[in-house]
Amino acid sequence: MTNTKDINSGIIIIGNEILSGRTKDTNTSTLATWLNSIGVRVEEVRVIPDIEDTIVNTVNTFRKKFNYVFTSGGIGPTHDDITSQSVSKAFNTIYGEHEDAFKILEKYYKPGEFNKGRQKMAWMPVDAKLILNPTSGAPGFYLENVFCLPGVPSILKAMLGGIQNKISGGDPILSSIINLRTVESEIAKSLSNVQKENQDIQIGSYPFFKAGKLGVSLVLRY
Amino acid sequence: MTNTKDINSGIIIIGNEILSGRTKDTNTSTLATWLNSIGVRVEEVRVIPDIEDTIVNTVNTFRKKFNYVFTSGGIGPTHDDITSQSVSKAFNTIYGEHEDAFKILEKYYKPGEFNKGRQKMAWMPVDAKLILNPTSGAPGFYLENVFCLPGVPSILKAMLGGIQNKISGGDPILSSIINLRTVESEIAKSLSNVQKENQDIQIGSYPFFKAGKLGVSLVLRY
Repeated sequence: MTNTKDINSGIIIIGNEILSGRTKDTNTSTLATWLNSIGVRVEEVRVIPDIEDTIVNTVNTFRKKFNYVFTSGGIGPTHDDITSQSVSKAFNTIYGEHEDAFKILEKYYKPGEFNKGRQKMAWMPVDAKLILNPTSGAPGFYLENVFCLPGVPSILKAMLGGIQNKISGGDPILSSIINLRTVESEIAKSLSNVQKENQDIQIGSYPFFKAGKLGVSLVLRY
Repeated sequence: MTNTKDINSGIIIIGNEILSGRTKDTNTSTLATWLNSIGVRVEEVRVIPDIEDTIVNTVNTFRKKFNYVFTSGGIGPTHDDITSQSVSKAFNTIYGEHEDAFKILEKYYKPGEFNKGRQKMAWMPVDAKLILNPTSGAPGFYLENVFCLPGVPSILKAMLGGIQNKISGGDPILSSIINLRTVESEIAKSLSNVQKENQDIQIGSYPFFKAGKLGVSLVLRY
């Protein structure tokens, strides 16, 4: 049986809109929840701007460091979408019109509507494999262990089913949550002992405030 | 006048609960919105686990790379809160009972309630300066350009007022949003020309789906 601890991943969120605070990132949570369910741990997330050198360097660092890498954002048709060209550069491969992606998009749009702007969405590493997009036509792609997904949360979510069979995870990572009506400092000492005696379980402690009441969520992961 | 482009920052979100997908990070958005308003750009965010070596290395990378660094999470009283000891190690300074922090906490709790668990919240780099916590007593701290804040969003937010005068930003980073009823591929070409002719303004294009309708938000930042 595969040891789940050995299958890890990193997520790269690409987009100035997260770094400016305008948009709250939810794709990390979507990806991480899904990855955990197929036995892949997320070890690191980086949020980076739409700058080619930064994308190239981060992709190259992550693809060596982790079993799987997921990028989100920057594969649309506008000038600030530079993920596809940057990933091509990271892999030192040709950025051009992808034959199969072109066919999918040509079929998706009504005759006469497949304009230059839309054709840009077929530009990617020419040797990439496609990730089908059941929601809005434009496919994502993957090269070796790097999976490039869009930034729009609903579209990203809809595309995960299509890559599940490309990823070899371990056992699902299980978790239980225990909610207590207490404060952390009251239980810190005994909880620390429980953690020491159960090294194979990771115990996280998170205070919460709900409806004016204080509490602590203990999250056990194994 | 300070050139805002020269004042940058990095955010380190510390916590397994974000990497597992259980909790969606909102502190990045809170910090980034506030930093932009005082003229500090956020250049990178990293989400990392509660592992000492990872925290030490990330803090040391970021404090050299950026004018300001903000950490969120891991300064509470439980066994999984290891940010304070890790930051002490990153700065090669003593992790111990901070005199002023101890006094604040001693005063905050009723007599007899300042137990061992709570006293742990006074442990930090002994030469750190404190960040006062108007909500729940336990202070954050800063050392040189690294500001350590808690992970609970409401408490983090309440503590920002207390550090505003410690940060020298440039002019506020201004932004305007134009919402259009169109799709990105229809405007991609002309928008690209507008961006080329206005290099001092950063134009971001973000598709949205609201109440079943498609649209594009253009975000201008300068």
